[in-house]
Parts: sequence; structure tokens; C-alpha cells
Amino acid sequence: MKQFLDRDFLLNTAAARKLYHEAAETQPIIDYHCHLSPREIYEDIRYDNITQVWLGGDHYKWRLMRSAGVPEKYITGDAEDYEKFLKFAEVLGKAIGNPLHHWSHLELRRFFGYEGILNGQTAPEVWKIANEKLQSEGYSSRGLILRSNVDTICTTDDPVDSLEWHEKLAADASFPVTVLPAWRPDKAMNVEKVTYPEYIAQLEAAAGMEIVTFADLTEALRRRLDFFAAHNCRLSDHALNYVMYAPARADEIEKIFRNRMEGTLPSAEEEAKFKYAFMTAMAAEYAKRGWVMQLHYGCRRDNNPVTFRQMGPDTGFDCVDNYAPSAQTAAFLGALEEAGNLPKTILYSLNTNDNAAIDTILGCFQNSDAVGRIQHGSAWWFNDHFDGMSEQLKSLAALGYLAGFVGMLTDSRSFLSYPRHEYFRRILCRIFGEWVEEGFYPEDYDTLEEIVRGISYENARNYFGFARK
Amino acid sequence: MKQFLDRDFLLNTAAARKLYHEAAETQPIIDYHCHLSPREIYEDIRYDNITQVWLGGDHYKWRLMRSAGVPEKYITGDAEDYEKFLKFAEVLGKAIGNPLHHWSHLELRRFFGYEGILNGQTAPEVWKIANEKLQSEGYSSRGLILRSNVDTICTTDDPVDSLEWHEKLAADASFPVTVLPAWRPDKAMNVEKVTYPEYIAQLEAAAGMEIVTFADLTEALRRRLDFFAAHNCRLSDHALNYVMYAPARADEIEKIFRNRMEGTLPSAEEEAKFKYAFMTAMAAEYAKRGWVMQLHYGCRRDNNPVTFRQMGPDTGFDCVDNYAPSAQTAAFLGALEEAGNLPKTILYSLNTNDNAAIDTILGCFQNSDAVGRIQHGSAWWFNDHFDGMSEQLKSLAALGYLAGFVGMLTDSRSFLSYPRHEYFRRILCRIFGEWVEEGFYPEDYDTLEEIVRGISYENARNYFGFARK
Amino acid sequence: MKQFLDRDFLLNTAAARKLYHEAAETQPIIDYHCHLSPREIYEDIRYDNITQVWLGGDHYKWRLMRSAGVPEKYITGDAEDYEKFLKFAEVLGKAIGNPLHHWSHLELRRFFGYEGILNGQTAPEVWKIANEKLQSEGYSSRGLILRSNVDTICTTDDPVDSLEWHEKLAADASFPVTVLPAWRPDKAMNVEKVTYPEYIAQLEAAAGMEIVTFADLTEALRRRLDFFAAHNCRLSDHALNYVMYAPARADEIEKIFRNRMEGTLPSAEEEAKFKYAFMTAMAAEYAKRGWVMQLHYGCRRDNNPVTFRQMGPDTGFDCVDNYAPSAQTAAFLGALEEAGNLPKTILYSLNTNDNAAIDTILGCFQNSDAVGRIQHGSAWWFNDHFDGMSEQLKSLAALGYLAGFVGMLTDSRSFLSYPRHEYFRRILCRIFGEWVEEGFYPEDYDTLEEIVRGISYENARNYFGFARK
Repeated sequence: MKQFLDRDFLLNTAAARKLYHEAAETQPIIDYHCHLSPREIYEDIRYDNITQVWLGGDHYKWRLMRSAGVPEKYITGDAEDYEKFLKFAEVLGKAIGNPLHHWSHLELRRFFGYEGILNGQTAPEVWKIANEKLQSEGYSSRGLILRSNVDTICTTDDPVDSLEWHEKLAADASFPVTVLPAWRPDKAMNVEKVTYPEYIAQLEAAAGMEIVTFADLTEALRRRLDFFAAHNCRLSDHALNYVMYAPARADEIEKIFRNRMEGTLPSAEEEAKFKYAFMTAMAAEYAKRGWVMQLHYGCRRDNNPVTFRQMGPDTGFDCVDNYAPSAQTAAFLGALEEAGNLPKTILYSLNTNDNAAIDTILGCFQNSDAVGRIQHGSAWWFNDHFDGMSEQLKSLAALGYLAGFVGMLTDSRSFLSYPRHEYFRRILCRIFGEWVEEGFYPEDYDTLEEIVRGISYENARNYFGFARK
Repeated sequence: MKQFLDRDFLLNTAAARKLYHEAAETQPIIDYHCHLSPREIYEDIRYDNITQVWLGGDHYKWRLMRSAGVPEKYITGDAEDYEKFLKFAEVLGKAIGNPLHHWSHLELRRFFGYEGILNGQTAPEVWKIANEKLQSEGYSSRGLILRSNVDTICTTDDPVDSLEWHEKLAADASFPVTVLPAWRPDKAMNVEKVTYPEYIAQLEAAAGMEIVTFADLTEALRRRLDFFAAHNCRLSDHALNYVMYAPARADEIEKIFRNRMEGTLPSAEEEAKFKYAFMTAMAAEYAKRGWVMQLHYGCRRDNNPVTFRQMGPDTGFDCVDNYAPSAQTAAFLGALEEAGNLPKTILYSLNTNDNAAIDTILGCFQNSDAVGRIQHGSAWWFNDHFDGMSEQLKSLAALGYLAGFVGMLTDSRSFLSYPRHEYFRRILCRIFGEWVEEGFYPEDYDTLEEIVRGISYENARNYFGFARK
Repeated sequence: MKQFLDRDFLLNTAAARKLYHEAAETQPIIDYHCHLSPREIYEDIRYDNITQVWLGGDHYKWRLMRSAGVPEKYITGDAEDYEKFLKFAEVLGKAIGNPLHHWSHLELRRFFGYEGILNGQTAPEVWKIANEKLQSEGYSSRGLILRSNVDTICTTDDPVDSLEWHEKLAADASFPVTVLPAWRPDKAMNVEKVTYPEYIAQLEAAAGMEIVTFADLTEALRRRLDFFAAHNCRLSDHALNYVMYAPARADEIEKIFRNRMEGTLPSAEEEAKFKYAFMTAMAAEYAKRGWVMQLHYGCRRDNNPVTFRQMGPDTGFDCVDNYAPSAQTAAFLGALEEAGNLPKTILYSLNTNDNAAIDTILGCFQNSDAVGRIQHGSAWWFNDHFDGMSEQLKSLAALGYLAGFVGMLTDSRSFLSYPRHEYFRRILCRIFGEWVEEGFYPEDYDTLEEIVRGISYENARNYFGFARK
């Protein structure tokens, strides 16, 4: 019987323990995709209490509480912070099998030195311990990053963003961590949204040009891409329902754009064509610049119209969308390859049923441009749990070349999420350990440790080509 | 090496054994969804031999025998009961990995005290033992229910049903088990069936009103809903190909219904619109009454036209349908929520690939109306096996709040199926035991046992709000 | 800790070891589906070095190398054989979790007696050992087959094939292995291909008749079917995107064919109708002759247009296609059954998400024509790995009758691939061993060994009815 979350958590073989403690544990973190605020990093913000850190914006926790029947008052409502924490602690204590149970306890151990269990009984004690720590040295945003051995962070930034906080961070020699922008132009693509023309106006201002045509749009984006590149941006990110293949003539695209700017929303077919044209244009720019293109898909957002009106997006009302034809994904990449415009690419689907499709698509576009030129991104969002991560790793291993994988990212809004890298590395070492123990792979620690170090850190460094601060 | 199906069957850790034997084993059973005949319960029927009990109507067993090449004569044909039993025993003995192998042996142990293995060699012995028992005290339908520690049973009833056997059961103080009707209005929805107008005529008679319009149809159903409610019905059930979202204007629906009653079958699009309108109307009624809505989908029925002509439906010729767009499921629930008409709901898909989609849809509609207001139903039908149940539980745990799960049901036509609850509880305790043993969850038996008792029994009691007899 | 790939590789229980070594290991091999060249068997060809054997045509290995960033020069390019081998060895050494790692090492052990690890360091040594062996007695194509205990081989042959090498093999009493043709008429079905009319001309020549109509086409194929039957062919194979149901009138099909021969390519809908009509006609012929119909689907081929121009098909640029509606698959089989034309059938999908759909479709068409009349083929191509095979076996066991399974095939182009049967049998025995060890199935070795021998060899012999040489 192992103790809960002990030093060898998840490491059920001697080989796993050796690999984790000797090769994985000490590697720095490259968190190449997250939703941290560069301003909050620059301003080195602090928190009054653990409710602010944990429940201020974490829709994973909100969902869990709602699932347990907790009234919204104690989730996003006007209850006191302490009351909210009590409710959360009660639910968390019974959240057996949910990754939040592991993550939260890892955070309590790694950041607050609390080795006990959080539940309804212990909540008052934890509240006290955590809040005291939060007032002490090293618990500001920068402090939390530094104590997590983070080397590089990429935030998520809109093309219209001034990148002023990134500039300030780059100029601040007192903070050794490299913080880079990442390009996320969803608002420029989502032609079906009510707010689209408004956004285009913002983009006009940012790019310093008028946008009348689709050609103007891509030109404006090119200017902003250059601006991002000047700030050492090396990767992009896109949220798509699915990776579509919907070729159309240039004049069709121009017409869809013109109509939209004049107030006519596109049909479903026009929307797909427009987005395909948009993605095709963006990919070409990334390829030219040596950037990485990240595609996140398989998600249906904002499913509850009532709560959406009350709370807006990113509040915990999203689900897996199981429509993502692999034929279209492959055709999109094929068309880019044919045009000489296929950048390094990372595919993430929220639907784990897509694992094998993705892993076999990768193999159709690999070449000597990079080790793992096309990557299958780490288990994403809802799948960021033990089984989800294990399956992604095993599928990639069986169908591709796991040793070339660029590994984990937090995708998080919180400065406390770095233990997810630890969680990932432990799972990786666990799998390797089981394979060694079973005689599925030789007990050759030189090679095993090389692979573990690669997936933990070095592959990402080589793949993205980030400038060091 | 564990003995086959011993006391600790499936319980591979000390924690699992403790949880099962101390918390799960003694909980009563709430079988909230099954296909038992209330008449057969009331009449306290008996069986001549085990072939009648086991092979009289169990299409799971028929399929298995056909898969092993057994001629239909020995399955549903005119062979002697003893011959049929011999054939079944031969096949079952080699049905390694099939849940029937476990279920049947559990039934032999729990009901007939036979601890051996059933196969071609032992069949004569088992035939004798089982048949003797079937003649003895406590082996009538009621006896079998009582010895299984069943507390509540919900049958499956058509809106036109007189519920006379339910009335008699309710009035019979000698039988302590609560037997309640459940509302299954598929025939009123399946507008594409040849027999639809015939059914509407039956519904007219039952509701005591003429049905000319779709509005009449829903009014007639409302009357029957009131009638079912007066008999303490608390939940409904629907069999759908998939959970569709197909909004239409009221006059379109009226036209589809009118055309159908005049003999014109609907197009595929009209069928979806009609069914969506029907489901929307029903859901509103359930919400108003505090009933639970069960949606069973992902099934294609009656795939073999030759055997369908010979034997009709529910004879073992159904398969998984893998078309069930999660976007439509989410949109349906979203539209109900928007209208204030979303009842407590349980989603079951026959396609296990839908697990994650379902578990993430749940989270979009949870609130303080109930713990686990929207539920992911236990692994259903074909998936009611070790891996299927394990995956449903682990997915729900990782993506939702397992501690709020309402747990198992038999969905069975047989009075011998209650060991499936045992099977489920053993699997649940096995998973928890492994998590504790591995240090994934604290060895906190108070909480663990509370969760186990909840999923085994108490959650269902709280969720459905059944009247006690 | 087990040694890498030792005598008991994959056999983690006493029961598994007993079953493998006593029942599975010594069974002969029926390789009922492969892509070996009958000419190369007849001519008893030899290889200069291991690069020719391993890297000459194996697109699995090519993909792996590309995924690791190896330049094409060292894969299919003009580098020296030794250089290519070095590059492959380097990548293979780090290909943890990839089935090639197991397969290649099994081949080194079984054929070349090399018990070490292949990687960048050991490559020179292995190069020497393997190449020496390849020059010695028993390392020709026939030698490799004979030392693998192969009993029967079915190749993959086009209807226009003269079968001359099959004739010569049949007449050659010095080679005891039965080598039979298998019928693969994809080129006669793929009406959308540019080369279709060309192929029809070849078929005219082979069948000795003019082909003007679709009726002519099926008549020509019938003649060739008779020719194949005269050469003891017992099974067919089809590569489909998905198993479609698209009924059309005879005159529509005639028109599609006529238009095609006059140069007009079919629409997507016409293509589906044509292929459905083609499959329907072929299935009827197989049923009449007692042949087995194999359907391979769920694959999208040739996804990289650049490499396709350079290298053509079957070079490692294929992926899983996740569009395969189970409703259509079931409807196709149902229509054949209705017409009395459903042959014994084996379904293989490249998409493992289809496992449960397939396993439940099987059950709709089983009868006493054969044990396992409709079969779920062994994990195919990309899925031919530990997890893929395990899942296929467990799914078939849970949803069908595993004891009737016809088991493994190599689907390979290489004379060194027979250890894949060993790999499969070890996995099978591992699963059984775990079930026995856990008390999930009785420790009844008579029955277990009977089942293991059946799946390893005897079921295939009974199912296909191959003539023995």
C-alpha cells in the first residue's frame, strides 16, 4: 500500500522511480502554451487568499462544484471567500478519480507544504496555512513561477495586442524567465460572430491600415505577425471546431468577407470556406517564418445559453464535439504540403477517440525538417488526467515516434499549475517503468534517460527555437 | 491465483475487499430501469426448468449461441428444453471473456447454490440441481426478488397501459417491495413506423379523447402522464437513434402529424423534426413534475431482415450505431434549459466512444437542483461487462463527480439478473481499491464507504424521490 | 524484472506461460492474408543484406524513420545499404513503445539468433551477423517460410493475374507449404480512378470477352472467379473507404459505368452507388462458392501529394479515416442476407473506435453456417500492436464468441514477418492467463488449450476450407 501522493506517486516500479528522480524531476519547464497574463507576471501580483488563487477563474473547479450540486452563490456568486473555500474543500474531498483531486493536492504540497488531505474537516486548517504562505516572500506571481523551475513561458495573445507587457518583461533583467507571446488570431477568423466587424476595426487600428477586402485582412495580419516576430514569437494557436478542408475560389472568399462587413452573416458552408482560406493563409505565414502552428479542435463551447448570458465564455460550459473528419484534417495538411506551406504543426483534439487518427496523420507529413515535424499535442483540457495522458502517450508511441515528442504544457490561467508538468512526467516514467519491468523495452538507462529528458524539456527547446532571455 | 468467482471475485486489493464487504454488499437494490412484467410479479409466477428462465427470452444468450454456430432449433426453435440447455452449457463453457459467463455463474451460485463450472460435461448435473430448486419455496418471481434484497423496481410501461398490475401490487401488503411504473412513450414518437396510426387509436382510447393534431397528441399524453404520476411514476425512458436537435415551427410539426395520420410517411428530415418536437414537449412535462428523463441512444435495431420477419424485435439482432453528434445532444439540452424545461436527465449511449462527450455534456448543465442533476447512465446493454463498466466509471470520475452517480440498473427481462448489481459494485470497489493501493486516493474509509454506499443505493434514493410502499 | 524479450515475453502469469508453451507455440501458421509475391516464393529468392529484407519495401519502417527526422536519402533514397541500416538502427533503438521495436527484435532472435539490442552502437555487429546468415542455407524465401512452421499462405491477387506462379508452386512437390491465391478486385471497383478504363481493358483480355456494360463486367469477373476457384482460391479481399449502403436501380449503375468508360468521372454519390452494386454482385458470387469475403476499411490513403508524386502508393503516407457509419455496414450485410447472398465475412476497420460496432454487427448475422460466420478481423496494420491486439481480443470476447475467432494474419510484404503470429499468440495467452489468475475464468486447461489451439490454427482451417497441397 503506497501512501497518498507520496514521493513516488505514480511511480510503481524501480525503473520508473529511477527515471523520474534521476532524469525527469530536475528538468526545467518550457510551458509553451498557457493563458497567463503577461501583465500579472510583470506586476508581480499577489493574492489575499487561496480562494482567489484557486477559485477566482478556474472553470475546472467550478464545474466540479456544480456537478456536486453546490449553489452558484458559492462558486461564482457573492458568498464570502472563506465560505466558497469550504464548499470547494468538501466537494474536492469526495472527488475520487478526478484530476483536480491530484492537482489540488500536488499544489498544496509543492507550494504550501501541506501534506495532508483537503476536505470539509481540514478546510479551516488549510485556509490558514495557505493564506499565511500567500502573504510571505516568494508567493507573488513571479515567485510562484521561479520556485517551479520554469525556463520559458508562452502566453496567448491576440493580433491586436500591443505586447507592452511582453516588452516590459523582456526589458526587465531582474526576472530571468523568458516570457514570449504566442499568436492566437481566432477573432480574425470567426466571421460568424456578431462582434466580427468590431474586431476588424480594432485590427485596422493595430495594423495601421484600412481593411476592406480579405486581401487587406491578410495583409493587416502579416504586419502584426511581423510585430509579433519582432517580439520573439515562435508559435501560433487556433481554436477550431474541427480542422476543415473547404477550398474555394479567391473571389468567393472576398464576397463572403464583403458581405459580412456589410452585415450579412455567412452560411455554414461559407463559414467553412472562409475559415479554410484563413487557415491556409496563416499557415503559409508560419511556414515562411519557421513558426509552429497549433490546432486545438473537437470542442463545442458555451452550451448552456442561460449561464452564457450570465457569465459569458470560459466559465465551465464546454463539451467534446465528436465531429472531426480525419479525411479533412489530412486534406488540409496535404494541401499545405503541396503548396510548400506546411509549417511545423501540433494537433490537439478534445476528443480522445481521435488519438489514432491524429497519430497516423502525423506520419504522412514527417520529414527531416524536424524531429517530429508534425506533433500530436499532449492530452488537452478535459483529457489532462491519468488515463487521458497515458492513452495519448501510448498511442503516440505505438503509431509514431514518442522519443521526439515535445511534451507537456499547462494551458492554464493559474500560477499554481506547474505541478501538471510533474504529473505528466511521472506518468511518462510510470509507463516506461512498466515497459522495462515487463521486458517490453531493454533496461538501458542511458537511452531511457535521454528519451525522458527529451520529452520533459529538450525536444521542446529544439523544436520551437525560442530565443533565450 | 484466485479461485474462479470466489468470495473476493474482482476484489484484488485489501481496500476493495473491505469496501465491498463492509459497505457495498449489504446495500439494498433500487432497480430503477428494467423490463420485468408487473403481472408476472403480481402473479408470483414459477418456472418448470432453467431453460425457461434462462433461454425463454434472453437475447444475449441467443446471440452467443448463434455466434458459436448453434442451429436456431436449439435456440428459439422446437428442440426440447433439455437439449437447448445442453447446447447453451457447451457454448457458455467456452465463452471466455463474455459477461454471460460471469453473470450465469453468479446466478448459479447466488440462486442455486451451485459452485461449480457450467459446461457440456456438467450440464446434466446443473440441470437437475437448478430445476429442483426452481420447484422449491422462494423460487417464484417474488421469491427471487426478495432473496436479492431489492427495495424498489421500476418497470417499463407504455402510456396506454392500464397499470392494473401496478395497482394490484401497490395494494398487496404481503409483498414489501416497491414496484413502480416508468413512462416509455416511444410508440407515440415513432411517426415513421407503419403501425403509428394504430397506436394513436390506442392512445385515444386510453386518454379518452380524440387525437387529430399534434397538440391533441401532447394533451392526450399529458392525461396519461397524470395517470402515471398518480401511480407514483418518477421517471421516463426514451429509445432514440441519437439525441437530435431539429427545431421547426409548430405548423410544420402539425403538418407532419396530419400527413402521417392521412397515410404519408415523413421524410428523414421531417422525422427528426417531429421527434425533436415530441422530445421537447415531453421534457417540459417531466421538468414540471420533477421526473427524471432517461435517454437511451446509439443503437441500430433489427438489422437482420430475415430473422426479423421470423422472430420480430428484441431477439438479438441489434448493433451499435456510431452516429450521435454530441453537438446536437448538447444543443437539445441547451434549448430545454433556455426554456426552463430541462428535467433531471440520464444519458446512455450504446457507443462507448461517446463516454467522454457525455461526461463533458453533463458538466454544462449541472446546478443545485440535484447532486448530479444530469447523469451519465451506467454502461448499457452490450457494454455491461467488466471493461465497459470500468470505463464508464473512470470516465465519469475523471470528467465529472462520480460520488454523485446514481449507479446500476439491470435493464433486464429476467428475475435472475440482480447479481448484475453485485457485479457492478464489485467493479466499483475494485477501482477504488486500486486507487487507494496505488496512493491515488487517501486510505480514508469513512469517505470511501460513504461514496460506495451512495453509488450503490443512496444516491438513487435521493435522486429519484420514489415513494416507499 | 523480466529480461527484454525473453522466453516468456508478454507471458506474465503461470497460466499464460503454460498456455503459450504447451498449446500455442507449436501450432502451425495459416497466414490467410498477406502480400507476399508468389513468384518470389517460387524462385526461392535470396537477399544480399538485411537492409534489402527490412528496408526494401517496408513502409512501417520508413514512416518511423521519417518521424524521427531522418532525411529521405537514408530511407528510400540513394544512400548505401549500410548507411540506411545504421540510420534505422539508431531510430529503432529509441522507438520505445512502437511495435516495430518488438517485431524487429523478434525477427533478429528467431531468424538470426541475435539476442542483443539493436541500436546505433550495435548496428555494425548486427549488420555482420544478419548478412552472414542471409548467405547461408535456409535463408531463402522458402527457407524463411519453412523455418517459421507455416502451413498455408494466401497471397493477394488481381483478377487479371495469370496465377502462373501459383500453378508452378502447386506443381512443385519439393515445397510442402500450401500457397493459394486470394481474390482482390479493387481495381475493377474503383471507378473513380483515372486508370479505370485501362484496367477494364486488361480485364477484357484476361476474361476473353468484351466489357461494354456493368453486366459484362460482372460476367468477366465471374469467369475470373471460376479461374481463381480452379486454383483453390477460398477468399477475397476488398479495400473500402467504408462499407457503404447505397442501393440504386440497375439502369443507374449501367449509366454510371457507360459514362465512365466514355470518360466522365462519377460524382461522389454515383461512386458510392457503383461500389455498392459492385460489392453486392461480388458478395453473391462468394456466397455461391462458399468463399470468405474480407472487408478492410477505415483508411485514407496517399495523403501527401508531394511524396505521392515521387514514390506512388504504399510508401507510408496513409492514415485512419474515421468516417464509417455502422448503420451502412449493417444495412449492407442485411441486404445481402435478405437476398440469400451473405457469404462468410471478415470485417477489419483501421479505426479501433469501430471495434464495438463491428463486434455487435457480427452478432446480427451469426448462424449455423459456420462457427463465427461473420468475423471481426485481427487488429489491422497500424493497430497491430500490443494495445491494439489486446483491445480487439477483449472486445470480441465481451461482445461475441472469442473461441470461434480465426485469428492472426501478417498482411505483410516480408518473409520475416511470421513472428507477428508469435506476438499475437503471446498476447492471447497473456490475456487468458490474467483472467485465470484473477479468477475471471476457471483454471481448466483442457478447455483453455482447446480455445488457444483453435484461435492459433484450427479455427482458420475449419473456417476457410483450404485444400491441402
